[in-house]
Amino acid sequence: MEDLSTLVNHQTRLAARPVGLPTRDNWSQTTAPVVEPDEGGVLVRTLSLSLDPAMRGWMNEGKSYIAPVEIGEVMRAGGVGIVLSSKNPLFREGDHVTGAPGVQQYWTVGEKQIARGDVSKIDLQLGAVEQWLNVLGMPGMTAYFGLMDVGMPKEGETVVVSGAAGAVGQTVGQLAKIKGCRVVGIAGGPDKCRWVVDELGFDACIDYKAGDVKAALKTHCPNGVDIYFDNVGGEILDAVLTRIARRARIVICGAISQYNNEGAVKGPANYLSLLVNRARMEGIVVFDYAPRFHLAVAELAGYLKDGRLKSKEDVTVGIETFPETLLKLFRGENFGKLVLQVATA
Amino acid sequence: MEDLSTLVNHQTRLAARPVGLPTRDNWSQTTAPVVEPDEGGVLVRTLSLSLDPAMRGWMNEGKSYIAPVEIGEVMRAGGVGIVLSSKNPLFREGDHVTGAPGVQQYWTVGEKQIARGDVSKIDLQLGAVEQWLNVLGMPGMTAYFGLMDVGMPKEGETVVVSGAAGAVGQTVGQLAKIKGCRVVGIAGGPDKCRWVVDELGFDACIDYKAGDVKAALKTHCPNGVDIYFDNVGGEILDAVLTRIARRARIVICGAISQYNNEGAVKGPANYLSLLVNRARMEGIVVFDYAPRFHLAVAELAGYLKDGRLKSKEDVTVGIETFPETLLKLFRGENFGKLVLQVATA
Repeated sequence: MEDLSTLVNHQTRLAARPVGLPTRDNWSQTTAPVVEPDEGGVLVRTLSLSLDPAMRGWMNEGKSYIAPVEIGEVMRAGGVGIVLSSKNPLFREGDHVTGAPGVQQYWTVGEKQIARGDVSKIDLQLGAVEQWLNVLGMPGMTAYFGLMDVGMPKEGETVVVSGAAGAVGQTVGQLAKIKGCRVVGIAGGPDKCRWVVDELGFDACIDYKAGDVKAALKTHCPNGVDIYFDNVGGEILDAVLTRIARRARIVICGAISQYNNEGAVKGPANYLSLLVNRARMEGIVVFDYAPRFHLAVAELAGYLKDGRLKSKEDVTVGIETFPETLLKLFRGENFGKLVLQVATA
Repeated sequence: MEDLSTLVNHQTRLAARPVGLPTRDNWSQTTAPVVEPDEGGVLVRTLSLSLDPAMRGWMNEGKSYIAPVEIGEVMRAGGVGIVLSSKNPLFREGDHVTGAPGVQQYWTVGEKQIARGDVSKIDLQLGAVEQWLNVLGMPGMTAYFGLMDVGMPKEGETVVVSGAAGAVGQTVGQLAKIKGCRVVGIAGGPDKCRWVVDELGFDACIDYKAGDVKAALKTHCPNGVDIYFDNVGGEILDAVLTRIARRARIVICGAISQYNNEGAVKGPANYLSLLVNRARMEGIVVFDYAPRFHLAVAELAGYLKDGRLKSKEDVTVGIETFPETLLKLFRGENFGKLVLQVATA
């Protein structure tokens, strides 16, 4: 075991609540000593962190599906790490684990947190560290349960997914293909669109930056949209609402286009299409499905192994880049699941 | 049988598509002779017509859940009539029937229309003519299937219904009470609110004209809203979205506050509450449930008979008042189901 007294824990804390896009001023960089865990606990070194659109919501005050990060707290982040020191019989030094270490280099987990399932061992045979933050992690679980439980795809149906090259979207589209659907992605820019069609096997992809999304939906979804998996909200949600089929299901997973609004969220003006088409719009929060995560991981890992499912991660190195790297999400600059690599072992 | 040659059929036709609230200029009054039905057909004298918020949508151009009324056509309207002359073995002179006669005094129905179910006999033992346009008619069917099939009430849940004193709302609320729910109405003005509480037995009613709907929802729905049956859209929908409970169901039945907008519909800015609360918003079109109408009529007629269900109709007399009477709906001036009485026998 390393000599902990030589280690320093670099942390990023929430310094102020943002208005609009987060800036440097919303963060503070702090350091703390690294100490042995108490009896029943473990000490984890962060390897990679998951950077997610949901983080923007956690920075706001007020109740949501999860408590906000308080001013002065280490910023919440999911991640993968390696056990440096264990005083818990369930974990051994060198084990790879996943949980929510936060934006810091070292994570001390107590016995109670372990008991409530805050940290889980992972098997790197099933997927690489980055894949455990992507298709085998929260984005993959969100894609799986959002599509399967809320979207309920039937063979031959048309599935549209926005943020198609992003973490959730890439798995939604590929899984829908595996389930026998016609899949149309929506993404920003020709590179992402080409990738989801050529590499991931989507039937088509609409570049929303290139022009008329409504017209493109008409072309690519001649029988209407049976399932729309929405990661973006805003104008794209409104465009898809004009093309939904009878009894369509719209999965509300996120609304990244609206998270940095300084004013009100733009509500879907075309929501009465739900009435005309006897359609449904339903929200999903991935944590509800935790008791079945292991089943989804097993199924998705199988598809990874047999080559039917691919994943792409966009990896930035260095915990100090966190404030800047996070902005890539909101600018649509990430290509694949955005991962912040903090250490390699 | 009457001498048909002495009869004149007064009709109201759509003359121009409205922008905003319909005006006199949107209508033309015409007359036509009344003629014997062809073999297999019937001739019906209109007794009462149903005036519904949905009529505003039928006046617009473009596809919806039903074709628009074309310029020059007799305005579409549901109604109850009496058979004046029958050349079809299913109907006899003097039978009371329901269907969609349109805004005219006499309705000639052909054999093909009868074969596809456009006209049905009704039993005045189960309810009066006006009730067949209300609780035993389309509003009642909408209330029944919207609440039961889409809302799926469970005993002890909290149900909120807007347009609570209107045709659909009054039955939604009473039926939810019968099913063991706590029911809170939203209506305009103290008279309507008092009536739904004192006469219909709702647990509470919020007067949206009197002030802060959000605060009142907080008071009257301390555990949140499990089912919201929405007839109005707009700001009230947004207010309810802030108070929904986990796994809430929002039934989108109508949006009368938005039908006369000259600009875009106001989308629900708080729709991300669906995500946070894993809730659902779903549209209903009553015609989908036609194969089960007889079951709902039987159940609701039973409640009428045993006094558990009351109904209120707001009856205006005279087909010539149609253009003015219709506006009562959009001004919120009707108190109960709006009915236009055209003849009494």
